[in-house]
Amino acid sequence: PASTPCAAPRNDHNAAAMTYCVGIMLEDGLVFASDTRTNAGVDRISTFPKMTVWERPDRVLVLLATGNLATTQGVTSRLEEAMTAGSEHALDRVPTMFRAAEVVGDALRQSYGRDAQALKDAGIDGGGSFILGGQIKGERQRLFQVYAAGNFIEAVAETPYFQTGEVKYGKPMMDRVVKTRIGLIEAAKCALVSFDATMKSNISVAPPIDLLLYRKDTLRVGLRMRVEDSDPYFLELRRRWNEGLRQVFAQLPDVPWTLA
Amino acid sequence: PASTPCAAPRNDHNAAAMTYCVGIMLEDGLVFASDTRTNAGVDRISTFPKMTVWERPDRVLVLLATGNLATTQGVTSRLEEAMTAGSEHALDRVPTMFRAAEVVGDALRQSYGRDAQALKDAGIDGGGSFILGGQIKGERQRLFQVYAAGNFIEAVAETPYFQTGEVKYGKPMMDRVVKTRIGLIEAAKCALVSFDATMKSNISVAPPIDLLLYRKDTLRVGLRMRVEDSDPYFLELRRRWNEGLRQVFAQLPDVPWTLA
Repeated sequence: PASTPCAAPRNDHNAAAMTYCVGIMLEDGLVFASDTRTNAGVDRISTFPKMTVWERPDRVLVLLATGNLATTQGVTSRLEEAMTAGSEHALDRVPTMFRAAEVVGDALRQSYGRDAQALKDAGIDGGGSFILGGQIKGERQRLFQVYAAGNFIEAVAETPYFQTGEVKYGKPMMDRVVKTRIGLIEAAKCALVSFDATMKSNISVAPPIDLLLYRKDTLRVGLRMRVEDSDPYFLELRRRWNEGLRQVFAQLPDVPWTLA
Repeated sequence: PASTPCAAPRNDHNAAAMTYCVGIMLEDGLVFASDTRTNAGVDRISTFPKMTVWERPDRVLVLLATGNLATTQGVTSRLEEAMTAGSEHALDRVPTMFRAAEVVGDALRQSYGRDAQALKDAGIDGGGSFILGGQIKGERQRLFQVYAAGNFIEAVAETPYFQTGEVKYGKPMMDRVVKTRIGLIEAAKCALVSFDATMKSNISVAPPIDLLLYRKDTLRVGLRMRVEDSDPYFLELRRRWNEGLRQVFAQLPDVPWTLA
C-alpha cells in the first residue's frame, strides 16, 4: 500500500525468496535455519530450498540464500561449477572461511552483474544476500553475512547471529534468548520459535524449515533435517508456545488506571 | 546496508517519525497508542508527540501520525486552521467519521503536495500516514488508516486493528491476542506489550508512550495518559513479560533429535 514507507518492489515476474533465514554462532557450534517458500506474487508460490551444504573431510560450509531466486541460484551454480572445475578459488579448496566469504561475494557480483541492467530496465529488484557459516580445518568456526553488494561482515560474541529476509517478526525473541553461551539445542529451539512468530504474521514464510546443527571442531554436519508443517514436535512446540504466551499475558498486571 | 531489500531512505536532513502507532477497534471502544520518538539520523533524536486528540461535546477524534515530521505537522496545522476558520469541512463540523477521514486525506495531499517536488529533488521520502479513529454523535465508532496517497481503509471485525511505522516486531503478539471481543484494558495491555517487543529490537522507538482509551458511545475520552520509561507499572509489565517469555521458552520441549 502507498502508506508503507519501504514497500517491497512489485517484482511480479521474478520469483523471490521473501524468506526467513537465520544463522547463529555459539561457543559450542553453529545453527542454521531457513524456510523453503518462494513467491512471485501471491498466486505463484513455490518451494525452493535456500540452504546449501558442502561437507568435505576438511570442512563444512553452509550457505543460506535470500532474495531474487535467479540471482541466488546463479550464485550456487557458479560455486558448484568452480568446484567441478577444480579451481583453487572453489569453496572446497579455499584455505580459510574469510576466503570462502570472498568467493561467495564474488559469485554474487557475477551472478547479479550478468542481469543487473536488464533487471533495472524492468524495474525488478534482482538482488540477493547470503548467510555463510562453517569451519575449515586449522581454523575456528566462523559466520558471515554477505550483503547484496558482495561485501560481508562477520558475527562476533556480542552479535552472535544474523538474519536475512523477513527478519523483524522473529527478532525480539532472538534478542531475548540468543547468547553465545547457550547450547545448540536451545538455539535451534529459539530459531524455530522465531519462525513461529514470522509465520504467524507473514504468509510468505512457511515450512518446511531446513535446520542444520554443527558442533564446533567436528568438521561434519551434526544434524540436518527438514521440519515439515505436520512435524509432531514442531506442532507441539507451536501449540505450547502460543498457549504459554497467552498465559503469561493473561497473568500480567492490568493497567492500574481507571477508565472514565 | 546494501543487503536490505527495502532499506529506509537515508533521509538525513528530515526528522521522521520512525515511530510505532497502533489503533484498535473493539466491541467496547477504541484504544490508541503511539510513541514520541522522532529521529533525523541517530544523532538527532527528539521527542514529538504523534497523537492529536479533538474532544467536543458531540465527538471524539484521535489522530496518530507516522512519517516525515514536516508533512505530518503540516497536516495537523491545516486541520486546526480549518477549525479556527469555522470551515464546514473542519473536523469539528463534519457529520461523519468517513468525512473526517476524507478531510485528513485531503490535508495530507495538500501538506505533501506543497513539498513533494522539492523533497523528490532532494531524494527525501517526505510521505506520511495516519490512523484516525473516534466517534461522532449519531454514528457508530470507526477506525481508519489513511495512506500516504490520501486514500484510506476502515477497520472491520475481522481486522480490528491498524499499525503504522515500525509495525513488525509487535505484530505477532497483536495477532495472537487482539480480537474485537476483548476489553479495553486487555487491549491496552497488549498494545504496551507490542511496544515492549518493538523497543527491544529498534532503538528508534522509545517511551514516553501516549495511550488513549475511548469507551463506545460516551463521546468523551475515557483515559488519556503518557507512559514514561520510568513508569512503575510499565517497568513491572516489561519485567514480568520478559521473565514469563523466558520461562515458557525454557519449558518448551527440546528438539527430539540426536546431534552427531
